[in-house]
Amino acid sequence: MFSFRKACRSDLPAIIDLLVDDMLGQSREVVSDPIDPRYEQAFAAIAADQNQLLAVAVDREDKIVGCLQLSFIPGLSRTGMWRGQIESVRVAASERGTGLGSQFIEWAVERASERGCQLVQLTSDKGRSDAIRFYEKLGFTASHEGLKRSL
Amino acid sequence: MFSFRKACRSDLPAIIDLLVDDMLGQSREVVSDPIDPRYEQAFAAIAADQNQLLAVAVDREDKIVGCLQLSFIPGLSRTGMWRGQIESVRVAASERGTGLGSQFIEWAVERASERGCQLVQLTSDKGRSDAIRFYEKLGFTASHEGLKRSL
Repeated sequence: MFSFRKACRSDLPAIIDLLVDDMLGQSREVVSDPIDPRYEQAFAAIAADQNQLLAVAVDREDKIVGCLQLSFIPGLSRTGMWRGQIESVRVAASERGTGLGSQFIEWAVERASERGCQLVQLTSDKGRSDAIRFYEKLGFTASHEGLKRSL
Repeated sequence: MFSFRKACRSDLPAIIDLLVDDMLGQSREVVSDPIDPRYEQAFAAIAADQNQLLAVAVDREDKIVGCLQLSFIPGLSRTGMWRGQIESVRVAASERGTGLGSQFIEWAVERASERGCQLVQLTSDKGRSDAIRFYEKLGFTASHEGLKRSL
């Protein structure tokens, strides 16, 4: 059994551990104690923005075993449709295959629906073929190219 | 010569016209006078969110010939990286092939950079092959699948 809730400041070290424990994250993240101040700043920016929801999944022992970020994005197109956008989904290696990932995504989709979103979207690296199949099973369609440009 | 600026309320009818005049937009949008209140509500939600920039392109006669929305998204991953996300890019049919589109995207990329974003991202429908080539020429890489789920 897992439960899902908004992340609080004290969850930050556990969330960073999840970001690091990832095929692509190992070279991108910094683990230190105390944690890198850039993560503190980012957490504060997310917490200050009502249209961002950083969420964690916790197990029965209250251990953090997953994280994701949901952004609520207002827009004009499609007669003023709001979009929910999911980013930075991570599930602890110990919990993969338990159904946690799909429960967590469905929980996020419900939060988007509550906020009036009529579409939920995300991008997944084409190298993460397991992740893409996972999202397709959950009803997502890979209808778009996800284009990125580093600055 | 074109110039680019933040959209104001009085630009809304012209922006809706641009959204309608689009391969995929014709069936998705509603044109009426007065404009549909859902567009008014969406404009207000965008204007109230400091992390959204709805922008227009104007020609020498101050006519609106393009629009796009840029979202500034804070995040924890990659040591707290901000992303700029571009959505709902439209260029008036009369101005296609003039270089307006690439100038407008470069302007948006500069705004993202000013706000500290280290990545700019967007998704483009796989049916819009011209658009995808256009973004690739501007330095975007189609590294990700863009997955969508309607609610």
